[in-house]
Amino acid sequence: MAAVAEPQTKKAKTEYNHTREAFLDVYATLRQELLDDKMLEGQPQEAKDWLREMLDYNVPGGKLNRGMAVYDVLASIKGAENLGKEDIFKANALGWCIEWLQAFFLVADDIMDGSITRRGQPCWYKQPKVGMVACNDYILLECCIYRILKFHFGGSAAYGQLLELFLETTYQTSHGQLLDLTTAPPGHIDLSRYSMDAYLRIVTYKTAFYTFYLPVAAGLVLAGEARPAAFELAKSICVEMGQYFQIQDDYLDCYGDPAVIGKIGTDVEDAKCCWLVCTALKEASEEQKDVIKANYGQKDPTAVAKVKDVYRQLGLAAKFEAYEAQSHAQLSATIEEQSLLPKQVFTSLLAKIYKRQK
Amino acid sequence: MAAVAEPQTKKAKTEYNHTREAFLDVYATLRQELLDDKMLEGQPQEAKDWLREMLDYNVPGGKLNRGMAVYDVLASIKGAENLGKEDIFKANALGWCIEWLQAFFLVADDIMDGSITRRGQPCWYKQPKVGMVACNDYILLECCIYRILKFHFGGSAAYGQLLELFLETTYQTSHGQLLDLTTAPPGHIDLSRYSMDAYLRIVTYKTAFYTFYLPVAAGLVLAGEARPAAFELAKSICVEMGQYFQIQDDYLDCYGDPAVIGKIGTDVEDAKCCWLVCTALKEASEEQKDVIKANYGQKDPTAVAKVKDVYRQLGLAAKFEAYEAQSHAQLSATIEEQSLLPKQVFTSLLAKIYKRQK
Repeated sequence: MAAVAEPQTKKAKTEYNHTREAFLDVYATLRQELLDDKMLEGQPQEAKDWLREMLDYNVPGGKLNRGMAVYDVLASIKGAENLGKEDIFKANALGWCIEWLQAFFLVADDIMDGSITRRGQPCWYKQPKVGMVACNDYILLECCIYRILKFHFGGSAAYGQLLELFLETTYQTSHGQLLDLTTAPPGHIDLSRYSMDAYLRIVTYKTAFYTFYLPVAAGLVLAGEARPAAFELAKSICVEMGQYFQIQDDYLDCYGDPAVIGKIGTDVEDAKCCWLVCTALKEASEEQKDVIKANYGQKDPTAVAKVKDVYRQLGLAAKFEAYEAQSHAQLSATIEEQSLLPKQVFTSLLAKIYKRQK
Repeated sequence: MAAVAEPQTKKAKTEYNHTREAFLDVYATLRQELLDDKMLEGQPQEAKDWLREMLDYNVPGGKLNRGMAVYDVLASIKGAENLGKEDIFKANALGWCIEWLQAFFLVADDIMDGSITRRGQPCWYKQPKVGMVACNDYILLECCIYRILKFHFGGSAAYGQLLELFLETTYQTSHGQLLDLTTAPPGHIDLSRYSMDAYLRIVTYKTAFYTFYLPVAAGLVLAGEARPAAFELAKSICVEMGQYFQIQDDYLDCYGDPAVIGKIGTDVEDAKCCWLVCTALKEASEEQKDVIKANYGQKDPTAVAKVKDVYRQLGLAAKFEAYEAQSHAQLSATIEEQSLLPKQVFTSLLAKIYKRQK
């Protein structure tokens, strides 16, 4: 029987399956473009090899939630069935720019924090042949973002908007990092700085903007959105969602199942400015505060247990659950009440994180 | 006698005196705008104080030649007498963006090289309260460039061109840094990598683009230049000039008067991939090469003297003078023969560096 060509219907366009594998295919394309970049024409093979290895080591190994969200946002607005190959590629290329941005910040953070492992392997700067060369590598990681934007959006109407979006998010994130470093400087513990206000500002700048607002805003730009009010709305919802996400992280560090989250939390030992300690310091009696002050940031398991016992006395787990319910209700109401953007843009993001166990 | 108002003639506009002090006034304005940035509204005083101190420590303390050159380029094209207050401010703001870019790279380089002092004071990361926080500070320094561009060029016709110019120069410079770090990794000496080709590529990317091409291109953009050929011409002249500038630097490290250049050169001790050693390795006999290999990169003054004796045997000082004469003649001819841009754009730059003693 002869093969019968299927007619090209709208349906034919929807065959894209937004899997991790499909997303990783786009990474391979972008990496090749960066290695073949005309701007570095004639570069020695060693420099090319270094760049390839450095990218492979640092960019694609995360959960990829942030990067894959750009497609979801675009599909929520335009309908997945209306997206052509090029739309899909562009959404994923922007998604990878977010993953590149994250890689850039993680390489830098690991150096500053003196971290040992990241994503189950030694931190990049901990590789014997790398060391402080990593300080230049994260600059290169950042530069790649703007090469990808130029390759795929240069000259388009969206280009200027995208440049500003990534540049501003970079500044917000490094401002958040500065707030974190000045509130909780490595090696110095000063619990008087651990206020809930300080904590929420750190979380907003250091995490919420690049983790939630950036993928949503990138999707909006791709969808041709130009109304400032739409971006403002997205920002306020995403900041709230980012705070909720980080507070969950802090909760899971203490109360999550290590077998599920894949690590044993050490926020108490590391003297982290986290939601639990900020809440505890707000609610505790003088005696309880003294216990926290005497024991927070100590590696000794007995000291850690004393801090966690104060958490238990204060009912922090229940307080987290109350916060979670209230935050979810408020977010849902905000999403429901607005009519600027399809609700699915936000509900699909929220569904992925609500009551997560890891 | 009643005061008589002077008529507003073209002459009145020319009162600007392009001094270091006038240029520093612009720094003070830009710094204040960054501290008052709406994007970081509500930031704690401590974060503001940190940013102010970090900027003052790292940005304005250099020779400022790169930054001040933007005005010179613009004045060469448009005529100083035709520049209004706003033109002058914008040229100087762009000049400061270059100084900010340089500060960003110097803070990073000092960490990577483990340097002790910079511009006569301890390196920023060497300040006890700073340390590895400097890794975030140089990200902030870079971010400031794009805030300044947004504040003063956002929405203008030049904005897109300027964003790309600074982003591309950043990538070129960090590529140059990668080449340098892979050719001469700190702590490993491999003289077989010290070829003249490798050297010239490092110099071009690491120094020439941001030191010479960037101020010229920024001035061209401000002057409304849009012809790709004009930028290509500027690039080829500026790259040649940048190579000449760095080769002078390398020459002065060995043959300059320490009292004039303000430091005692240590390129031999530091195993630098510099013009002298690349030239020597190209010209030396096997015996002379063995002397270099055995002694290059040693702190011992006797070893240094042996290397410098090979330089003397090879007549490197005379070779430099021949290179200088030939490079100057070639640059002058290129500048003379072209008719795309006023010759003064380039001759004023060249005059500042030709046969410099420091």
